Amino acid sequence: MKPKIIGVTELALRDAHQSLLATRMALEDMVEACEDIDKAGYWSVECWGGATFDACIRFLNEDPWVRLRTFRELMPNSRLQMLLRGQNLLGYRHYEDMVVDKFVEKSAENGMDVFRVFDALNDPRNLERAMKAVIKTGKHAQGTICYTISPVHTVEGYLKLAGRLIDMGAHSIAIKDMAAILRPQPAHDIICAIKETYGEDIQINVHCHSTTGVTMATLFSAIQAGADVVDTAISSMSLGPGHNPTGSLFHMLEGTGYHAELDMVRLGRVRDHFAKIRPRYAEFESPTLVESGIFRSQIPGGMLSNMESQLRMQGAADKRAEVMAEVPIVKADAGHPPLVTPTSQIVGSQAVFNVLFGRYEKMTAEFADLVLGYYGRTHGEVNPEVAKIAEEQTGKKPIHDRPADHLEPEWDQLVTEAHALEGNDGTDEDVLTYAMFPAVATEFFKTRAKGPINVGKSAAQVKAEEEARLTGETTPTAPITYNVRMGGRTLAVKVERA
Amino acid sequence: MKPKIIGVTELALRDAHQSLLATRMALEDMVEACEDIDKAGYWSVECWGGATFDACIRFLNEDPWVRLRTFRELMPNSRLQMLLRGQNLLGYRHYEDMVVDKFVEKSAENGMDVFRVFDALNDPRNLERAMKAVIKTGKHAQGTICYTISPVHTVEGYLKLAGRLIDMGAHSIAIKDMAAILRPQPAHDIICAIKETYGEDIQINVHCHSTTGVTMATLFSAIQAGADVVDTAISSMSLGPGHNPTGSLFHMLEGTGYHAELDMVRLGRVRDHFAKIRPRYAEFESPTLVESGIFRSQIPGGMLSNMESQLRMQGAADKRAEVMAEVPIVKADAGHPPLVTPTSQIVGSQAVFNVLFGRYEKMTAEFADLVLGYYGRTHGEVNPEVAKIAEEQTGKKPIHDRPADHLEPEWDQLVTEAHALEGNDGTDEDVLTYAMFPAVATEFFKTRAKGPINVGKSAAQVKAEEEARLTGETTPTAPITYNVRMGGRTLAVKVERA
Repeated sequence: MKPKIIGVTELALRDAHQSLLATRMALEDMVEACEDIDKAGYWSVECWGGATFDACIRFLNEDPWVRLRTFRELMPNSRLQMLLRGQNLLGYRHYEDMVVDKFVEKSAENGMDVFRVFDALNDPRNLERAMKAVIKTGKHAQGTICYTISPVHTVEGYLKLAGRLIDMGAHSIAIKDMAAILRPQPAHDIICAIKETYGEDIQINVHCHSTTGVTMATLFSAIQAGADVVDTAISSMSLGPGHNPTGSLFHMLEGTGYHAELDMVRLGRVRDHFAKIRPRYAEFESPTLVESGIFRSQIPGGMLSNMESQLRMQGAADKRAEVMAEVPIVKADAGHPPLVTPTSQIVGSQAVFNVLFGRYEKMTAEFADLVLGYYGRTHGEVNPEVAKIAEEQTGKKPIHDRPADHLEPEWDQLVTEAHALEGNDGTDEDVLTYAMFPAVATEFFKTRAKGPINVGKSAAQVKAEEEARLTGETTPTAPITYNVRMGGRTLAVKVERA
Repeated sequence: MKPKIIGVTELALRDAHQSLLATRMALEDMVEACEDIDKAGYWSVECWGGATFDACIRFLNEDPWVRLRTFRELMPNSRLQMLLRGQNLLGYRHYEDMVVDKFVEKSAENGMDVFRVFDALNDPRNLERAMKAVIKTGKHAQGTICYTISPVHTVEGYLKLAGRLIDMGAHSIAIKDMAAILRPQPAHDIICAIKETYGEDIQINVHCHSTTGVTMATLFSAIQAGADVVDTAISSMSLGPGHNPTGSLFHMLEGTGYHAELDMVRLGRVRDHFAKIRPRYAEFESPTLVESGIFRSQIPGGMLSNMESQLRMQGAADKRAEVMAEVPIVKADAGHPPLVTPTSQIVGSQAVFNVLFGRYEKMTAEFADLVLGYYGRTHGEVNPEVAKIAEEQTGKKPIHDRPADHLEPEWDQLVTEAHALEGNDGTDEDVLTYAMFPAVATEFFKTRAKGPINVGKSAAQVKAEEEARLTGETTPTAPITYNVRMGGRTLAVKVERA
């Protein structure tokens, strides 16, 4: 029997360095690998999303639209894929529908092929407009189920959401496991349910992180259950809070009734390229190797490091355990939203506030909006007492309809504001950049002409550090007293780095 | 339906630090974790073997028998497990039968419960005596199949070997995948075949390394096929060239018909303990994260680093690729032995010699012995031309019977030699230590009284290095010129570490 071909989405250019290197990788460090990635036989190449867009203009002085066009040029044979946060697009608020349309249209025009559209709350009303916009461009609209574990999340619930996405015209369904908590059995159950209910032809893509050390088995189980495409990252950009390795997936399937049609010689070159690049960004590396405690704490890796840095800034690093215990409570009060951008930040910050100031004594504006419905509808019920506190503290009323329906048209205003900025080039792309991240974009436009900044270390620095590591020498951070001979005299001289 | 309980063997105390930290971990750094390991619910605790024994006396000035007795005392509820190289015991040659008996007897007496007995060639004649000796002590005799991939290795061949092990009275069968090349499908096929042929009650243990990134799925598939016990390492001592994480295995099984009865609170403490300890041995860490190229090269991680160091010593580090290409040829000529101690070293060294001096121009004594049958019978046929060269170069004749049958009784001679050594304490244990590693033991006996040496860094050193890493400062290895102000004058002073 001919094996079923399993498609693979390569994550090296987006989620891998987002998860492993704080999204800092410069386009310059990716270009060399593009030809091999383009010709290796991937189903798609993920290369764009909210964090990469943000990091481009915040840290790298790099125009994210140029990055996209460069990928388009360097990978003419590939489906380029992006992650789109539904009505939030790449930003942290809802946008009025026309902005959604414009963003999708311009992304498609600049080269995007596959739009993975998700909403942190799994609220279909937050996905509809973006899905419609993608379909209108003729590109691939992938509707997403954000996976979480809670008392209110069931296989039936996910199945129902899949149905809504199919009704919207989704060309495929993604199961997104950002916290690496999708176990083999539920993966199997959800995928079987979708295929049985909506037909074998429904394409299912599975995106798992590797943080818990479980999900290589999840991919295996998902494929056996009928998953069509899985997401992996080239081995030298894999594991830890990232993803399972592409080459390992290929080998895992050998001898089974499944096969990933990848060119392993090209994959070897891609691996070698990033093995050379990754050490340049060592300072941004997460120390996480594997963390199965996430099953209990429900806290994805990125969220944890955010909370830790908030606590440190408040001089309350010792409250880590309390905050970790508070998260599940806050999550439950908010109606059990999956923890993914932006809910992970919103729930995490509120947990920090609860520990520092007393439970709900001080609500963040975002958390109040969440429990009042301004982000959409959570799958579980919001704790009514907490919603009441939010009303009292903010003076806002809860809403129950589609949040974006409360927005006034804003495109013309955004155009006016963007065009007034120093360094703005007058394109719709620049208006969209401004719309996504107004403050950061304002600074970026001013400095853009200076060209990209590579925040990685140079090859020479990496080599020197590696040598220092091998010789076991450590850095003198404190003053050092040297005996210095000058003109026959020996002096004890205390020196310190200026 | 009640889930099937899956037993777990914890590898942290033996194979994990052998694979990750060059076997350097001191007993001192393990004792604190023992109570939690003992009470966590493991099927067994692997804690002793050839490399740990060797490292104890070679690097740590630690008596391996004292280590074993300490484990026995600290873990009264656990099955202690060791890895025994059949007729080789823990050494690199065959021992006469009485030495085998003595070694097993003394190991059992000092506290060992489970003996995983293997032979690098899978030659049952090299396993028989050790298995018999274990059974005589009333302890658990685990017969081992070393897994490899070759044109002559088939499910039927492994099944036949399992039958031989069962005939020897094996209490369980281990499938040992030292190179992390056991894929889910063959794992499934071999286990199903054994269970179908010899009965559901045959206990099967599965030992996989994680080097290729594939084997978490292999464990999943193995369990579904009927495996009863699997080997894992606590998460903070897992992955890379090591093993899959214990906590991840636990979570992976949730919702399936299988369950690992482990106390996750105790596991959390064991994890935290080794997370604290591991950085002390950073200089011994392997840089390997994941390496699926092993499927092509057939070279396990440890073997690769050995070959690289041999090449460096010969000033031929640039020949790495040629040697990697030579290994499969040498392996085939030797009759496709699985690559595991000692065959991995023997095949690896010969590949290096072939590249440096011309193919088989210069044969190592060990490789000549291998192709002439002195290590036992390989599963595939030895290349007769290569065997002929070995005969010519060494003047030795090939043998076809059990290698140990060519040995004279040697116990009394070993006793005499050992007792004559400075610092020998007159026990049979010391005779065995000498028998295993004569040269190293001779030195060790002299220095033993000084007590163990911990080769890990101190907690303070680890902290200083971590801080240096976080501040991104690098070590000045070259001279640095400082501007130094002394008494109002500024001098340019060039300083250099003395």
